[in-house]
Amino acid sequence: MSATETELVKYFAAKGGLSAARFPIGIGDDMAQVKLPGGGSVLITTDMLLDGTHFDTKKASPEQIGYKAMATSLSDCAAMATIPLAAVVAVALPRNFGEGKLKRLHKGILKTAKKYNCPLIGGDMTSWSKSLAINVAMLSIVGATKPVKRSTAKVGDVICVTGSLGGAIVKRHFEFIPRIKESLVIAKAGASAMIDISDGLSTDLNHICRLSKKGAIVEAARIPVSREAKKFAEPLKSALNDGEDFELLFTISQKNFEYLKKHWRFNGKLTAIGKITKSGAVKIKMPGNRIADLLPCGFDHLRKTK
Amino acid sequence: MSATETELVKYFAAKGGLSAARFPIGIGDDMAQVKLPGGGSVLITTDMLLDGTHFDTKKASPEQIGYKAMATSLSDCAAMATIPLAAVVAVALPRNFGEGKLKRLHKGILKTAKKYNCPLIGGDMTSWSKSLAINVAMLSIVGATKPVKRSTAKVGDVICVTGSLGGAIVKRHFEFIPRIKESLVIAKAGASAMIDISDGLSTDLNHICRLSKKGAIVEAARIPVSREAKKFAEPLKSALNDGEDFELLFTISQKNFEYLKKHWRFNGKLTAIGKITKSGAVKIKMPGNRIADLLPCGFDHLRKTK
Repeated sequence: MSATETELVKYFAAKGGLSAARFPIGIGDDMAQVKLPGGGSVLITTDMLLDGTHFDTKKASPEQIGYKAMATSLSDCAAMATIPLAAVVAVALPRNFGEGKLKRLHKGILKTAKKYNCPLIGGDMTSWSKSLAINVAMLSIVGATKPVKRSTAKVGDVICVTGSLGGAIVKRHFEFIPRIKESLVIAKAGASAMIDISDGLSTDLNHICRLSKKGAIVEAARIPVSREAKKFAEPLKSALNDGEDFELLFTISQKNFEYLKKHWRFNGKLTAIGKITKSGAVKIKMPGNRIADLLPCGFDHLRKTK
Repeated sequence: MSATETELVKYFAAKGGLSAARFPIGIGDDMAQVKLPGGGSVLITTDMLLDGTHFDTKKASPEQIGYKAMATSLSDCAAMATIPLAAVVAVALPRNFGEGKLKRLHKGILKTAKKYNCPLIGGDMTSWSKSLAINVAMLSIVGATKPVKRSTAKVGDVICVTGSLGGAIVKRHFEFIPRIKESLVIAKAGASAMIDISDGLSTDLNHICRLSKKGAIVEAARIPVSREAKKFAEPLKSALNDGEDFELLFTISQKNFEYLKKHWRFNGKLTAIGKITKSGAVKIKMPGNRIADLLPCGFDHLRKTK
């Protein structure tokens, strides 16, 4: 594919010509929002997880795969600061998958659905001669605030992340906690923009900046590097680019950040890693105060081969 | 897979334990219905279409594949007599798929979305070393009537189909018209149960009867066999079992049927093919008045290899 995923999403969004009145949030955010004719709205996201890319059926249990499929979409609900409502799941099953494994996959899905009060309400299944593919489409509703978009960061805002980053591939990508509760608190404190880190901090921060038409400067020394990433040869690189952390990356005014920090009651920490700037560039202050470009070097679903 | 698709859906529905107040229609119908906390409701369906099963990328154009993916879900909206609202599409792209083909696939989706006033509002894409998989999740809203379920056929009801059946594989499975408008008129006339014929008349009528806890008797001589199927060695068998007709199969009282027939203004014909009976068996009156079991011999997504 010659175009990047980002370029194609931009193309699709431009071609769509969606009515902003009917669809306040359209293509290019973590979820799309649909106004209902009778009043109110719902949000929807869809994620397809593939054997060999998002999981490896030779290593991961069906329950783990079910968990990850649901948790990935739940994390999208969190990224918008919305409340999960229900999910439908479609699976393409390898011919030899077997009833036992399918029931275990379902078990993983159902357990996650119950834990997050987001019932599995329908689905679709087909078998084929290829590998396992699983698609979750999830609905959510707005909480106490409007959904928090990617495109609304403001100059001077603090850039924050929840938890720690990097090395999710070791284990955490099957065990991450969708930050639903955290996101609702963050939104209530006044977050201006938000995304979940699925493709890697570098890529996802670039998404926020590009869509908000702003720049950013982050400090390498402040980035919360995970325990797993610290064991890697290049921990910082891992924290910046690995992806699948499913932590929240958001922007918020300095004042609101202070308030949020003071009232933060969750296990995962909250870290300010930089500021939103006027310029369109996304920069990083490296050790020794060298300023470098922070290029989107995370996961591009159309480019990288895992 | 030792269990049939029907058995597994039953298992998943039993395990789900959905609240009927929050989810008036759950697992096992053409769409699921979600009540919204603020009032109103939406319905949702998900369908994954796979290369080698639902289409063949060597023969079908990307535009045709895009059309079929959307039209399949639109047909689910019709099966419930609901109004399409919006769709999200996820694709797993073969590595060599290329930007040109992706844009043509998108074009097919977009054209269909516009035609049926059901905008594409979001999506997901990943490339992998396997074949093309495309998932459409679609939202709809209720029309002038309640959604028409599969499980509410009544004894004595006339069994009806729109259009003609069989041989869709020749061409029609890329060109069928989702019966949205027809379905709203059918529901308004008082249809008691409805399904779209995706797996074949024999299988889909068995779905209605099993879920309604009723039986049926259809007359072979009345079944509207398509022009394509008439060229086959066994036209009736084709009309009963081929599937992917995406016509509507519904039940309605004799009185309401007369009314509907009188006011039918659509191109596709309307045919009464039998009656709903008390017994749990689904029967067919063959030429020479021989009564046979009409077994669900259509497409089982977990069994057949195409």
